[in-house]
Amino acid sequence: MVLYIIGLGLGSEKDITVKGLEAVKKSDKIYLEAYTSILGVNKAALEEYYGHEILEADRDTVEQEADAILEAAQTSVVSFLVVGDPFGATTHTDLVLRARQKGVKVEVIHNASIMNAIGAAGLQLYNYGQTVSIPFWTDSWKPDSFYDKIAQNKAIGLHTLCLLDIKVKEQSVENLCRGRKIYEPPRFMTVNQCIEQLAESEEERKGGICTPDTMCVGVARIGQADQVIVSGTLSELADVDFGAPLHSFIICGNMHELELDYIQHYRVKLS
Amino acid sequence: MVLYIIGLGLGSEKDITVKGLEAVKKSDKIYLEAYTSILGVNKAALEEYYGHEILEADRDTVEQEADAILEAAQTSVVSFLVVGDPFGATTHTDLVLRARQKGVKVEVIHNASIMNAIGAAGLQLYNYGQTVSIPFWTDSWKPDSFYDKIAQNKAIGLHTLCLLDIKVKEQSVENLCRGRKIYEPPRFMTVNQCIEQLAESEEERKGGICTPDTMCVGVARIGQADQVIVSGTLSELADVDFGAPLHSFIICGNMHELELDYIQHYRVKLS
Repeated sequence: MVLYIIGLGLGSEKDITVKGLEAVKKSDKIYLEAYTSILGVNKAALEEYYGHEILEADRDTVEQEADAILEAAQTSVVSFLVVGDPFGATTHTDLVLRARQKGVKVEVIHNASIMNAIGAAGLQLYNYGQTVSIPFWTDSWKPDSFYDKIAQNKAIGLHTLCLLDIKVKEQSVENLCRGRKIYEPPRFMTVNQCIEQLAESEEERKGGICTPDTMCVGVARIGQADQVIVSGTLSELADVDFGAPLHSFIICGNMHELELDYIQHYRVKLS
Repeated sequence: MVLYIIGLGLGSEKDITVKGLEAVKKSDKIYLEAYTSILGVNKAALEEYYGHEILEADRDTVEQEADAILEAAQTSVVSFLVVGDPFGATTHTDLVLRARQKGVKVEVIHNASIMNAIGAAGLQLYNYGQTVSIPFWTDSWKPDSFYDKIAQNKAIGLHTLCLLDIKVKEQSVENLCRGRKIYEPPRFMTVNQCIEQLAESEEERKGGICTPDTMCVGVARIGQADQVIVSGTLSELADVDFGAPLHSFIICGNMHELELDYIQHYRVKLS
């Protein structure tokens, strides 16, 4: 019949569009993709609002059971719910591609995602360069390709949006080796952890890209009722508590007058 | 009381979020910003769906009557509707800023905009550089700063989203001089007009940025039921008819495997 791929937006159960809600209501099966982002409400709240059970789809489900999802969509109405917009993550593009190859009808219902809602921080979207991902470092694994991308953006005066890592359904090395499906609690990178890694990269690379004086904006829970936006230098923001996830981070490029006015209102209050 | 700034998304009256619709329903006054983008349905369709009159706000209204809008929001519930997301255009950021200065409570309700829904074309959002605007040229006015920006993006392998010009409520020079409020019919730049201007800039600049062989994607009415996505070289797309507005255009940077697979499905059919 049809596979609806529906963006849920960023906040609560009521951030779905009217069109999206209508699609959900007529669905036989509803999947919720739950590993690239999180909503401000949990699955139970969505189930109550929709009046329908939701199957949680972790990375394994989507990548390995895509065929099962698509087969169901051949004979019934299936909704695949995504926090933000459906095209925020590579996996969903891949799902659309597979659907098309199998001849499954797909309807995409768009919504806000961090990629456009970050406009709420007051920096104009067309003044951003490429978006970077900041991965959780370990003691022995410290990839820093984000540094080069931030540098490329800065060189032409552009802001950089940093998306901070999420670890959901991680297994410890021991559990992984023993094949035990025991998972660690989910982890969401904070603005503070991001700043630490940026500062360490700067120390290593010495390109003057993320110095203590670099102007930045930290944001949390954008699009939710309790969203937080705080601007300041990298060192000023290092210890600011942004609260619950998700956090994102902006490294400012050249600032235009309206942008300066705007973020001044969000300037960190130093004690 | 409160000023709701509500994104309408990109398609029909049902692309508003449930939260947005609830805000509209309790509003005393509703403005629709009608000069930076257009929806797939007209104002009358929105009025019927909301059961409430809508005041059209052109550029003059928003920039000159912002105070009146904000004053109304001090004593009543006012909704300011924006096609796409509220932070897609500078004017709305300015409105939020003025509201904050006046102590008017603002609630922003996000939605999809071309800046994230362009993901539907299959190129990953984090592989895009800065977004450029392509303005309508005249015989004597041919600004081409977009060329440098596309070149900057290309130099680091990134795609460029081109937003195509919209002219709403234009006055002819004669009517302007005589102070006659007579307006020209609205104009929306087509993919074809965009390609013409890109080709002319290339001829002028000779940077090898938009040659006849440059891979591109033209899109129209993204997020609407009849959206069109066609990929091909600049010269292949030159005469493709994309139909009704709005059109947008992508100049591809380096292509990743999944991206190539995806846009292959949208490859132009040459006769």
